[in-house]
Amino acid sequence: MKPINIGLMGVGTVGGGTATVLKRNAEEISRRAGRRIRLFMAANRDTERAREHVGPEVIVVDDAFQIVNHPEVDIVVELIGGTTIARDLVFKAIENGKHVVTANKKLIAEFGNEIFARAQEKGVIVAFEAAVAGGVPIIKALRESLAANRIEWIAGIINGTANYILTEMREKGASFADALADAQRLGYAEADPTFDVEGHDAGHKLTIMASIAFGIPMQFSKCYLEGISQLSSKDISYAEELGYRVKLLGLTRRTDDGIELRVHPTLIPEGRLIANVNGVKNAVLVNCDAAGPTLYYGAGAGALPTASAVVADIVDVTRLLAADPEHHVPLMAFQPDQLRDLPILPIDQVVSSYYLRIQAIDRAGVLANITRILAEDAISIEAVIQKGSIHDGAAEVVILTHRVKEMDVNHAIEAIEALDSVAGPVVRLRMEELNA
Amino acid sequence: MKPINIGLMGVGTVGGGTATVLKRNAEEISRRAGRRIRLFMAANRDTERAREHVGPEVIVVDDAFQIVNHPEVDIVVELIGGTTIARDLVFKAIENGKHVVTANKKLIAEFGNEIFARAQEKGVIVAFEAAVAGGVPIIKALRESLAANRIEWIAGIINGTANYILTEMREKGASFADALADAQRLGYAEADPTFDVEGHDAGHKLTIMASIAFGIPMQFSKCYLEGISQLSSKDISYAEELGYRVKLLGLTRRTDDGIELRVHPTLIPEGRLIANVNGVKNAVLVNCDAAGPTLYYGAGAGALPTASAVVADIVDVTRLLAADPEHHVPLMAFQPDQLRDLPILPIDQVVSSYYLRIQAIDRAGVLANITRILAEDAISIEAVIQKGSIHDGAAEVVILTHRVKEMDVNHAIEAIEALDSVAGPVVRLRMEELNA
Repeated sequence: MKPINIGLMGVGTVGGGTATVLKRNAEEISRRAGRRIRLFMAANRDTERAREHVGPEVIVVDDAFQIVNHPEVDIVVELIGGTTIARDLVFKAIENGKHVVTANKKLIAEFGNEIFARAQEKGVIVAFEAAVAGGVPIIKALRESLAANRIEWIAGIINGTANYILTEMREKGASFADALADAQRLGYAEADPTFDVEGHDAGHKLTIMASIAFGIPMQFSKCYLEGISQLSSKDISYAEELGYRVKLLGLTRRTDDGIELRVHPTLIPEGRLIANVNGVKNAVLVNCDAAGPTLYYGAGAGALPTASAVVADIVDVTRLLAADPEHHVPLMAFQPDQLRDLPILPIDQVVSSYYLRIQAIDRAGVLANITRILAEDAISIEAVIQKGSIHDGAAEVVILTHRVKEMDVNHAIEAIEALDSVAGPVVRLRMEELNA
Repeated sequence: MKPINIGLMGVGTVGGGTATVLKRNAEEISRRAGRRIRLFMAANRDTERAREHVGPEVIVVDDAFQIVNHPEVDIVVELIGGTTIARDLVFKAIENGKHVVTANKKLIAEFGNEIFARAQEKGVIVAFEAAVAGGVPIIKALRESLAANRIEWIAGIINGTANYILTEMREKGASFADALADAQRLGYAEADPTFDVEGHDAGHKLTIMASIAFGIPMQFSKCYLEGISQLSSKDISYAEELGYRVKLLGLTRRTDDGIELRVHPTLIPEGRLIANVNGVKNAVLVNCDAAGPTLYYGAGAGALPTASAVVADIVDVTRLLAADPEHHVPLMAFQPDQLRDLPILPIDQVVSSYYLRIQAIDRAGVLANITRILAEDAISIEAVIQKGSIHDGAAEVVILTHRVKEMDVNHAIEAIEALDSVAGPVVRLRMEELNA
């Protein structure tokens, strides 16, 4: 059978990894796919760099449009990133009837609805396993393996940089700034880490997972994002004393009022398997009505793990190349006419438990006042600990609440902050039991 | 589009769960599959029991051959178990050109080669996600998600009964017998638990995973099986002192000399995520050259989790019903003409680390003698602890070795057992770092 011709757009870290995997495992891959999968063409602004990765037998160009327009390219692999040229290339490839494999979470989360609609019209596949959690095959799990289920919620550690920083803060008591510097030194964080530590990257991935889990359009703009840059190692250590780990979680949940879609630091019980996912690793916990809880763990980034997902998609597409589109797995897991426009819940309507840390000036009256305020807002308390001494000005009260609507806890916090016996703002972290 | 007609053979626990899931999630499933999937016919010896599960609109028969011979049945679901009538039914279904979904690990592990060969000839699919680890979608992960990889090894906690017993033995210091009685009381173990606690069930699942991971024929008869019934809680507690947990692991590994295929109690470092998988849960850790280590965790048994896997397979098959077999994912992950007959390593050729517990009569000389014997067999020692007192006859030496061939450690054990200063047999457990 004729080999499948791959056009690789972007030969950076993941592109280089993809070239390596396609070459190194060529035999293993063709034993599975039933035909040869050949890197036919590669585009990179720096063509010399591309040439080093792809070897002498591949056509190298500096203009990726030559790939999407080339008649001999069967599958286009978009590893350029961003939403400008990458978007134009993907639309052009679809228009030209080419199948697309991409690792571009931003592109899918922000422009996925339009991309999938066009792909549907043209009968081509747009595959994006590599866009979420790198080498962890969570997209296929949600889209195919759990197809029998009503998916209830997903909780994911889906940003390795943030998880590395949180692990360092817990294990070494490091500050956010020191842990970040450490991550940058090791190459786990960018020079500008905003995208990772403020939750944007996790938000893109969460948006994609929510869409294919619940059969809703991608709506990244409604995803609540709160990062870890304001997190104090003191709260991580108090949380640990109370039996919790703090993780930057992406959480999406089906409720009667709408879909929760939120990224924020979260206390989770230390006994949960996902609480023990450390360093740069990723893990996604999915709770379903039939399968119950299942967890998927592995490397969420890096050249070869991400390339593993890219090439898995290439193999999937290869098998279906000449097939009737009727036999394709729906691109967004649900049939295109079966998406539902369920509302995304605003964050103040979300129900959660909370960790509150309150700086007390006058300990004598403070606890009575706080508990009165919480009682007035019908917020019940799961645990209280008092830390430090009033004499050296470091007296603190830490409270864990039961589940309550966020607007109610915010209302109580305002009242607590207005107390004379309380100094400064209240630290508020969300807490999830992840019972399944 | 015409609904897909399912013929369900066997309406016990999993069959009942499958009927429940197909009915309860009918809408969700058809939104994904693009057409209605209808339970059309069910066979059970006790037809009244079947009727209770499947409702009034389904044809109920007591002879499953009526299903495999019925012209309107599109997909046959075999949930009878065993290798007698189930085998005849599966062959007959294939002969009649019907696709088959099965949860029957014994049937696949022992007769899979013949079944897949016949299915290949007839161009039908035989799907078996539910045969391994229940609701954990490990078959699809190995077959599709990791298709880019050279899979190096798999380590799985794939028997929930055994894992429950081991968890009880560790957490409560219970004996094997007491933990087993507890498991039986809770319905986690059969009245005759042999199949689970002696490793047969895990061996079937491991055989299947090894086959699709490495592209080799199923060869259960060469799988090394050692169960947990002889395990003492004392060894579990010594292991814990040394930083290890004891798990019944199914292990398969590609080596230069052949494929390791073995089920046995295994010490693993407590820091590994898989070491913290407790109770009846299952988890499979897969190490690959590109993706690195990935782990899949969830419910390994039970009506609904297993039904989740059965119905996922039904949805997969539904999508491909009218497709050219060229577009099928190969049943055994690799193309049928691409299987390799790699040798399975005999257990005495396997390389592992070992935990040895030695009963000492005369402590003075014993350690010197033991270390001399180990040195003579070129076995190096990672750790030694001495337990108990020589005076009350409970002096013991526990040794952890570095990696060594099993025949060499066995040779050393023979020599140790022959020492005058040593009483009774040496307890030997294998130990795996699961470095990835």
